[in-house]
Amino acid sequence: MSHLASLDQLILELSKLPGIGEKSAGRLAHYILKNRSQYPSDLAKALLQVQEKVQLCESCFAYSESPVCRICSDEKRNKVSLCVVEEPSDIMKLENSGSFYGRYHVLHGTINPMRGIGPADLKVSELIKKVNDDDAIEEVILALDANLEGDTTALYIAKMLEGHRIRLTRLAHGIPIGGDLDYIDGRTIGRAFVNRVEI
Amino acid sequence: MSHLASLDQLILELSKLPGIGEKSAGRLAHYILKNRSQYPSDLAKALLQVQEKVQLCESCFAYSESPVCRICSDEKRNKVSLCVVEEPSDIMKLENSGSFYGRYHVLHGTINPMRGIGPADLKVSELIKKVNDDDAIEEVILALDANLEGDTTALYIAKMLEGHRIRLTRLAHGIPIGGDLDYIDGRTIGRAFVNRVEI
Repeated sequence: MSHLASLDQLILELSKLPGIGEKSAGRLAHYILKNRSQYPSDLAKALLQVQEKVQLCESCFAYSESPVCRICSDEKRNKVSLCVVEEPSDIMKLENSGSFYGRYHVLHGTINPMRGIGPADLKVSELIKKVNDDDAIEEVILALDANLEGDTTALYIAKMLEGHRIRLTRLAHGIPIGGDLDYIDGRTIGRAFVNRVEI
Repeated sequence: MSHLASLDQLILELSKLPGIGEKSAGRLAHYILKNRSQYPSDLAKALLQVQEKVQLCESCFAYSESPVCRICSDEKRNKVSLCVVEEPSDIMKLENSGSFYGRYHVLHGTINPMRGIGPADLKVSELIKKVNDDDAIEEVILALDANLEGDTTALYIAKMLEGHRIRLTRLAHGIPIGGDLDYIDGRTIGRAFVNRVEI
């Protein structure tokens, strides 16, 4: 508590950010105050611009500044593979790998009964509809996190697409390139054994 | 780079904050986007409120929402001791120690020739004027960081007040050499007040 209502409110808002506790928020607020002639309005403008301009792509539900995003409207990308991710931020990581040239579909989360998140809270029915309606799609690749929620979501999607002609795959689990066996957990090593490949 | 101009701009602004690199800024921006219906405008409003309402106290140069701050306008506080600090945020830490009931004077930095910061860039002449004009002041306590810049600033102030009738002291025991007030607990600060020494 700083005895300044506006400063306390700023610290409260900043401490809602992930990984920012009250003490860090106080330090950020003091930087903001020190640069109060310009920085607060610059940051406020950037925030309001994002709120005004960023929407979800009508097709893949990634963040976009136009009704259809850059990737979905790129005619050079192949239409046969569709990669399903949890969050819009995952797309950038996959794009940076340079390994995939198809399109994406963002679920906006994973099934998590503990937090009361079911398929209806995610873009799952939109995925099923897209796969059913778009005859060009030949493969759906699930790029979900390798945890309980990711596996549950993968199983649910597999069930919903049961009997469909498309190929349903998911990213291989295994030992990361450059990974040291000393630092890799037993479950990953187990999965790497099961999924071993001929050389 | 996200291919969204507004998102890139937000990440750029966030990465100006202390301790926030580009990767952390990306994570903060994705939290902001995920909560884009309400959070960006709440944070923007808090930023603009701080920019609009917070000013420097006319007397001590601490942050204040009124021309004269809460501490300077508190008639119950003693007028005989004046505690000199580097930054407005230092006041809260000293107040929390409960060891000091006088008034403050904020320098807004320390003398740092390496960064080209001299006495003229700080509220030093205002301090000297205040001590010369206000006969009630009997003691000036320097609560500066125990590092080269703090020591240089203390010596400069001592020189400027040479021959003056006031008692010039500085916080001593408890603050480690090279220590920063940000990381010191209230009891240590209290001890430093009790054991302050003449310079």
